[in-house]
This record gives sequence, structure tokens and C-alpha cells, in this order.
Amino acid sequence: MTYCVALKLNAGLVFASDSRTNAGVDQISSFKKMRSFVNRGDRAIVILSSGNLSITQNAINTLEMQGRHHDERNIWNVDSMFDVATLLGGCLRSVQNTDRPFLLAGNIDVSANFIVGGQIVGEPPRLFLVYSEGNFIEATENTPFFQIGEIKYGKPIIDRVIRPETQLPEAIKCVMVSFDSTMRSNVSVGMPIDLACYVTDSYVLDNLRQLPEGDPYFTAISGSWSEGLRNVFASLPDPEWVCQTSIPAVPDLFNQSQSQSQSQAPIQEIPPS
Amino acid sequence: MTYCVALKLNAGLVFASDSRTNAGVDQISSFKKMRSFVNRGDRAIVILSSGNLSITQNAINTLEMQGRHHDERNIWNVDSMFDVATLLGGCLRSVQNTDRPFLLAGNIDVSANFIVGGQIVGEPPRLFLVYSEGNFIEATENTPFFQIGEIKYGKPIIDRVIRPETQLPEAIKCVMVSFDSTMRSNVSVGMPIDLACYVTDSYVLDNLRQLPEGDPYFTAISGSWSEGLRNVFASLPDPEWVCQTSIPAVPDLFNQSQSQSQSQAPIQEIPPS
Repeated sequence: MTYCVALKLNAGLVFASDSRTNAGVDQISSFKKMRSFVNRGDRAIVILSSGNLSITQNAINTLEMQGRHHDERNIWNVDSMFDVATLLGGCLRSVQNTDRPFLLAGNIDVSANFIVGGQIVGEPPRLFLVYSEGNFIEATENTPFFQIGEIKYGKPIIDRVIRPETQLPEAIKCVMVSFDSTMRSNVSVGMPIDLACYVTDSYVLDNLRQLPEGDPYFTAISGSWSEGLRNVFASLPDPEWVCQTSIPAVPDLFNQSQSQSQSQAPIQEIPPS
Repeated sequence: MTYCVALKLNAGLVFASDSRTNAGVDQISSFKKMRSFVNRGDRAIVILSSGNLSITQNAINTLEMQGRHHDERNIWNVDSMFDVATLLGGCLRSVQNTDRPFLLAGNIDVSANFIVGGQIVGEPPRLFLVYSEGNFIEATENTPFFQIGEIKYGKPIIDRVIRPETQLPEAIKCVMVSFDSTMRSNVSVGMPIDLACYVTDSYVLDNLRQLPEGDPYFTAISGSWSEGLRNVFASLPDPEWVCQTSIPAVPDLFNQSQSQSQSQAPIQEIPPS
């Protein structure tokens, strides 16, 4: 499995991806799922990938190879992130068209997804989600983030915290918590975490970091979050209306009728013999 | 969609289910997904259901109809929860066998799951998960809970809190938080919540409650949890190593080489012309 998330904030873009891949539980490896393309002062682009690893790697390699032909439209010369997403979707379709018949013959899933974001001079930062079919959508202010892979466990904290005006350090913290929740509940998502933080209008990617197993900052976040949750949970009000009475093990007609009138859920009692 | 959860604790069993059903986004209704069968002093059984509503309702109705024939083995006379799970799995298979060809002809999913738990005199409380195929598994101390339906959003808090020795009021709180997380992230799970709390060796079900939209206790839990999470999040340490520098928009060779030696993730720079 995989977990990748990217945020589009006023202050910039945050990208993060895990590194665990698995082809069955007996074949687990570590592969980077983040690729960045930077031409300082002109463009900074990050791609996150999930799904079939051969498909996603080949699509990105195809995108990279295009970049060596300066006479063609490629990731280095197009003047819009929309064009970059279009190129990436095209590379994905091309690889799938080539490989699909062979993979499907082996009952192998060809699905693959990308998040691609960044900034090219002349545009604000933009963020896209490229579907397995090569079409794509763009993040807007209403939902300023995308996730791919194992998305559910890490979504609630993002829903609660992330707004377009969220500052980058807070956004990084949120991404750490999101990964912590995901890795606790799905063993197929694992360290190291690749993290990239792009500052709006900087056109560089200085804030790149790989957090290995046992990374002190991630460990501190994970521990503090866990302890904090336990404390908040302990402070929640108890349900006063439940389990207050010691209940007799033998039928008690008075209590029986009383309890039934209190409860709003019908009890199926044994039918008369 | 649906969310149901049941916990098996030393102190007893806790069951909870939402009430929202949907057949497409334009056909959303409210149906109870909890059924209880109580013969005071002898047995108390609760069934939670998810999946195709006609399948689950008909399976439980079949189980109930069996109970009217006192000469047959039925939910009222078998002497083990294992037998109850077997009967329920059999009813599910029977309904599916009858309905499957017709539903599949209309491309309608026939899958259905049950959680069934309770206590029959002579046994400790037991909890089972009945799969769509009618086979089933039993909860053990290692994983003292089952969930069906939209399970992921509400699982982390259960993973963190629930142990066999957890007391019933704390378990109820945990279930409330689990539902709050689920309903925030999936609109197809909704109030009212049916809640049943069975006290070990009581053989009654006095703690049954339906929490409607706006229920004061659930609202209090939801609000306190949300505020508590925000406070914990705010108290987490900031990532000191990120976004500290104001980054020049024009290339700066010193910073460039410095930043690249710091970063562990390779940057794809523009190839030479």
C-alpha cells in the first residue's frame, strides 16, 4: 500500500509520501514515491505516486525522458502546471496502453494515481490529482488537499486542521499526525517518510527531508499526540445513563417493565410457548 | 453506508449502530440496524447488520421465524452463542441463495455482514462476526472488537483505548468518539445511533438507548473531543528544520549546494541544453 498527501496553502505546498511497497505480504520493499523537478527561479514541481510501481515509475521516467528533447513540449518548458498535469496524464496513459494487456493477462492491477503540484513562473502554486485513467482534477480553496493510497485513517486530522491560511509549520505537524494515524492502523504504510515543503514564489525546493524509522521529530509528534489523545479522552464526560444499576440475573417484573419503557429500542422477547 | 461496532470486554458487551441507509445519494433513509433477543435470566443477544438491507432484514426475520417453532433448533433454545452464529449464518445463506440470481441480474450487490454477540446461561459473553458468505469468526482477547460497514475512520480510537479490562462507561465514550470520527468523514453514516450495553452475567438488556440528532451527550462528547484535539495539536512541537529560511527567488549557488547536501531526497534539476 501507499500513503501520500499534498496540501495547497496560501503560504506554499506541502508534500509527503511513505516508502513501503508490497506485492503480497512476503514481498515488502522500500521505494521512494516522491520525485521533484526543479529549475531554480523558474519552476519547482513535485510528483507523488501510488498504485502499480512499474506503471508509476515508467510514467515518470517517460516524463523525464521527454524533458531531454528540448524541441518538444516537456516538463521543463511548458508554462503552466495544467500542462504538466496533462503531460503526466499522457505518460500514464501511454505506459498503461503498452503494459495493460500483459498485466491483465496475469491478473495484475494496472491502476496508478499521482498527485502533482508546484509552481511555474507566471502562475500561483497549483495542485492536481491525476486519476488512473489519466484525467485529473485541481485542488481549490474548499478542499485544499489531495490524498492517494490508504487515505482514510489520515484524513480526519487534515479535515480538522488544514485551511488555505494554515501556516507551513502547522501544516507539517498535521501531515506528521496524519502519517502517524495511518501507519498505526495499516502496516503496509511505513517509514521512511519523504517530505517536501515548497514556499510560494520561491521557485526552489530547499525544504526536502527524508524521515527514517526512529526519526526524533516524528517520534516526538507520535508520542505527544498519543499521550494528548489519551488525556483528552480521559477528560470526556462519562455517560451517566448507562450501566448504573446492578441488574438482577433473575427476571424482575417491576424492573422489566420499567426498563422497557425507558429504552427506545424495541427488545424482541421470547414468544409465548 | 453503515457503521456498526461491538466490543467484548470483561465487564460486558457494547453494541452500537448508525441508522442511515442509502440507495444512491438521492435515496437516503433511516433504518435501525440493531436487533436484540432477550429471555431474561436465560439469554441476551444483539445483532448488528450492514450491507444490502433486504438481505439483512430477511435473514434476521428468518431467524426470528425459526424461533416460533419450538421443536426446531432456534435462537431461543440453542445453548451456545456459537449455535446462534451458525443459525444466523445459515439464515443469511438461505436468503442469499433465494435472492442472489434476481439481484445480480439487476447488478445489485448482495453482500451483507452481521455482528452477533451476547450471553447464554452456561457460557461467558461471546462476540462473532458473520461474513457475507455465512461463515464467521469469534472475537478473542487480542482484538476484543468487531466493526462492519465504514470501519476505518472510527478504528484508530478503538485501537488506542479498548482492552478487555476497559470499563463499560469508558467503552461507551470510546464508541461515541468512534462514531463522531466516522460521521465527520462519511456523510452516509448518520444519526440516530442505537446503543446497547450488556453487563456480564446479567442476562438482560436494560441499557438500550437511541441517540437522536442533537443528543446532548453525543453533542458534548463531539464538542469536547474536537476542542481537545485542537489543543493537543496546538501543543505539538513545531518542525524547527522546515521553512526557516527566506528563500531567494533567483538562483543562489551557495544556498543551492548547501541545501542539496542537507536534503536526503534527490532533486531532478533541469538537464543541460
